[in-house]
Amino acid sequence: MRNCFRLSMVFIGLIPSILSFSQTPEILRVRNYIQQNQHAILDEYLNFLSIPNTASDSASVQQNANFIMSSMKTRGIQHIQLLESGIDGAAPAVYGEVNTPGATTTIIFYAHYDGQPVNPAQWAKGLSPFKPVLADKGLNDGGQLIALPDAAKPFDPDWRIYARGASDDKGGVMAILNAFTALRESKQKPGCNIRFFFEGEEESGSTHLDKILDRYKDLLKSDCWIICDGPVDLSGKKQVTFGVRGDTHLELTVYGPMRPLHSGHYGNWAPNPAMELVQLLSTMKDGEGKVLVKNFYDDVQPLSAEEKKAIAEMPSMDDKMKMDLGIAAPEIPGKSLMESKMLPSLNINGISSGNTGKMASNMIPTTAVADIDLRLVPGNDWQKQQQKVIDHISAQGFYVVDREPSLAERQQHAKVIWIFRSDGYNAQRTRLDLPFARRVVSAVQSTTKEQVVLIPTMGGSLPLYIFEKILNTPTLTVGIANPDNNQHAENENIRLRNFWEGVETMAALMMIK
Amino acid sequence: MRNCFRLSMVFIGLIPSILSFSQTPEILRVRNYIQQNQHAILDEYLNFLSIPNTASDSASVQQNANFIMSSMKTRGIQHIQLLESGIDGAAPAVYGEVNTPGATTTIIFYAHYDGQPVNPAQWAKGLSPFKPVLADKGLNDGGQLIALPDAAKPFDPDWRIYARGASDDKGGVMAILNAFTALRESKQKPGCNIRFFFEGEEESGSTHLDKILDRYKDLLKSDCWIICDGPVDLSGKKQVTFGVRGDTHLELTVYGPMRPLHSGHYGNWAPNPAMELVQLLSTMKDGEGKVLVKNFYDDVQPLSAEEKKAIAEMPSMDDKMKMDLGIAAPEIPGKSLMESKMLPSLNINGISSGNTGKMASNMIPTTAVADIDLRLVPGNDWQKQQQKVIDHISAQGFYVVDREPSLAERQQHAKVIWIFRSDGYNAQRTRLDLPFARRVVSAVQSTTKEQVVLIPTMGGSLPLYIFEKILNTPTLTVGIANPDNNQHAENENIRLRNFWEGVETMAALMMIK
Repeated sequence: MRNCFRLSMVFIGLIPSILSFSQTPEILRVRNYIQQNQHAILDEYLNFLSIPNTASDSASVQQNANFIMSSMKTRGIQHIQLLESGIDGAAPAVYGEVNTPGATTTIIFYAHYDGQPVNPAQWAKGLSPFKPVLADKGLNDGGQLIALPDAAKPFDPDWRIYARGASDDKGGVMAILNAFTALRESKQKPGCNIRFFFEGEEESGSTHLDKILDRYKDLLKSDCWIICDGPVDLSGKKQVTFGVRGDTHLELTVYGPMRPLHSGHYGNWAPNPAMELVQLLSTMKDGEGKVLVKNFYDDVQPLSAEEKKAIAEMPSMDDKMKMDLGIAAPEIPGKSLMESKMLPSLNINGISSGNTGKMASNMIPTTAVADIDLRLVPGNDWQKQQQKVIDHISAQGFYVVDREPSLAERQQHAKVIWIFRSDGYNAQRTRLDLPFARRVVSAVQSTTKEQVVLIPTMGGSLPLYIFEKILNTPTLTVGIANPDNNQHAENENIRLRNFWEGVETMAALMMIK
Repeated sequence: MRNCFRLSMVFIGLIPSILSFSQTPEILRVRNYIQQNQHAILDEYLNFLSIPNTASDSASVQQNANFIMSSMKTRGIQHIQLLESGIDGAAPAVYGEVNTPGATTTIIFYAHYDGQPVNPAQWAKGLSPFKPVLADKGLNDGGQLIALPDAAKPFDPDWRIYARGASDDKGGVMAILNAFTALRESKQKPGCNIRFFFEGEEESGSTHLDKILDRYKDLLKSDCWIICDGPVDLSGKKQVTFGVRGDTHLELTVYGPMRPLHSGHYGNWAPNPAMELVQLLSTMKDGEGKVLVKNFYDDVQPLSAEEKKAIAEMPSMDDKMKMDLGIAAPEIPGKSLMESKMLPSLNINGISSGNTGKMASNMIPTTAVADIDLRLVPGNDWQKQQQKVIDHISAQGFYVVDREPSLAERQQHAKVIWIFRSDGYNAQRTRLDLPFARRVVSAVQSTTKEQVVLIPTMGGSLPLYIFEKILNTPTLTVGIANPDNNQHAENENIRLRNFWEGVETMAALMMIK
């Protein structure tokens, strides 16, 4: 309560019109439509989730694009087309539009239809990433898989759909498309011209998004992009996010002996690449979560006073999250979850060498691999940030190559590492006091009795700086998923309540004039 | 040459009769038999390798035991029986005997028929662990898979069989059984009473071997056990090994958040178990291969002057091995391969957390696992050695449990680790000047023109201390495999020349009087 009160004080000058939090009659009509059509809406959603959407599987990517185009066509959306980057093998964005007579505002609604890679073996029993199933609640909370109800019976809002993309971000695509349908079927009109833009390469780093935006610059003129991706606030409240972290990766492969060796016959003599890798990684962070790579934090653009205040007064869910997640203390002592996101990060996404568990055997592995994720904040340049880490690795005595090392190199250098640099992009932050932002926050606020949470920068990454750079258009992110949606990991899911509310949110945004 | 000369000086007092290295007529008769019967011998060997022999697969373990019993029966070996430990689910040893009229010496020939776990995905293209295939040379040296030759055509001795167990240690079982056949079929008689003993649990730590030896103490009276397991010397010379390292393992599981988290939304805040694990492991060794665990080297029994001299004057293959393996420098600077084996070791067999490569995704994993192998030398006690490492882990601030931690424990303790202690056993070393050892070395020497290499302690582990402890009988290890046999790893193989020569070695040992 205290936090809520303080929060309202912060934004009192910003959004004076939304101090009374309520749901408008227009939204209640949208809600009524959704409730009457749950079965049809979910039927389409589940079919969509049944199409694999891993970036590397280009046939499936195309199938997803086709599915969306067909869904748009059914809805009477116009000028449906694939926006191609012109690069062979790149996934297209799916575009469509609805023009509202008399409208002076144009909003582009963005979501992405591709998903993170999957390792089916890691998914819970009964789950398969591309065979969506229902559970009566979160599996982590003792949920059980259940069958679809009969057409006459309603869906419990606490039920969840488990599948890759359920939350990230086919849920976004479905929320946007159904918002448009709900408006029309509830006999309401959009307030603005609507553009639909569904990307197919977000999870692989939006490598060609800049080319698409550049090629279709004229088509993509708008007042604002609404990015429908990510979760609502940890408190369960709706949120509008003004910025995102940038992101890039490094894949590190340390080389040991040319062939796997018996740990008894060669242990203590043949260097173990797993040990070399762990020793290297351990130099990258201290015991208090601080990244020890030289100049790692130097470029960070300081937060404005307004941003600092907003962060300090956001509703804190940290203690509840710690209990839920079994975390005794945050990685950086004393830092809140939101404060932590304002810093660039270095995270081990995965590490692998030899075998563990039942497959473990007494050997010295030939290689050891780690995938590192670097999140960036405003001020950071992704290529510079990569270079800082690479320089750090060199400084630890490693001979660094950018392809598989030769036998001769391995014979000559005691510590050899192949560093694969992935692509990346910088962070982006829209100003909190931008006039269009007020209209967006008002629209979201019109759907809920609880105060909308405003977040200067979210933890996740989207290539939003590109929109500013190429189109000179602001972006605002409005996520809809439950925070425990297991985005990017096994057992990805969406809670139905979050999805229904997400449709309402998107509908409200479409009513902006 | 210099090394050879010095070596002969060391053992001149020990084995005066073998200074002229030659092959006896008896061995040439054995060789002739083998050459005439290559197809039949390999036919049986390949069938044997086709039976999976992973310890956890008890049905297959039984099938292997049946196969051996049937092979023994065909050869007219007597008193064939399974020696059971009396523990449910434990794999039996397979026993048989041949009594030689007038013999005053009894030798037990040991090999094991179980194999290390396999990860078929790691095996080279065209290989499958339990579908043995031939290659025209080592795959690492550009070898190609080839079909079995027609019955009329001979096998090239450089060809290799690829399969789990080819070298470790179904090759041992086959060498022993065929040595007996070769003696008999070449109209020669064993000099001693022969006992066959084929264990089925060696790769899982010989957990019940003590019980079997104890239950069948009377049946297993002998002058010496010959352990046919492991490779010949790196130089390609035959060797007799007087001792083995002990071995035990720890499986370490570090706990992070209860569910996988998006690295953007939670990075910098939710502790990453992979980072905690690499930081822990990095404290266990310094950059020069020295284990930093307190008192790690304290119990080591010093080498005798004779052992030290033998080690110093062994033929050194270190430089060649470094070139072959792409190793620039040994893990412990200045230490030779043989010197390194005289120390206890700590090796990371495997490490795993999240995903790497194509399956990598931006997440904070829930757990991070490492399998650690502790090799022991005389003086070390395996349980004490485990405890030293566990104490070290506690000293790094970890809350240590011996089962999966509860949510409450994870909420209360910043760093939580489950340490699973596997079973283990101590090292063993037979004295170099034992009289029976001279007879064994003489017999091996009778098969080769090159000087037999004598090794005080080999790097590998076998539970040989049990034989001394329960039966008060010395053991000597005579390995036969090529050193690059990929024992314990993917692409395990045996070179046919090594196998044929191994049969000759076993036959010579059976002629000891």
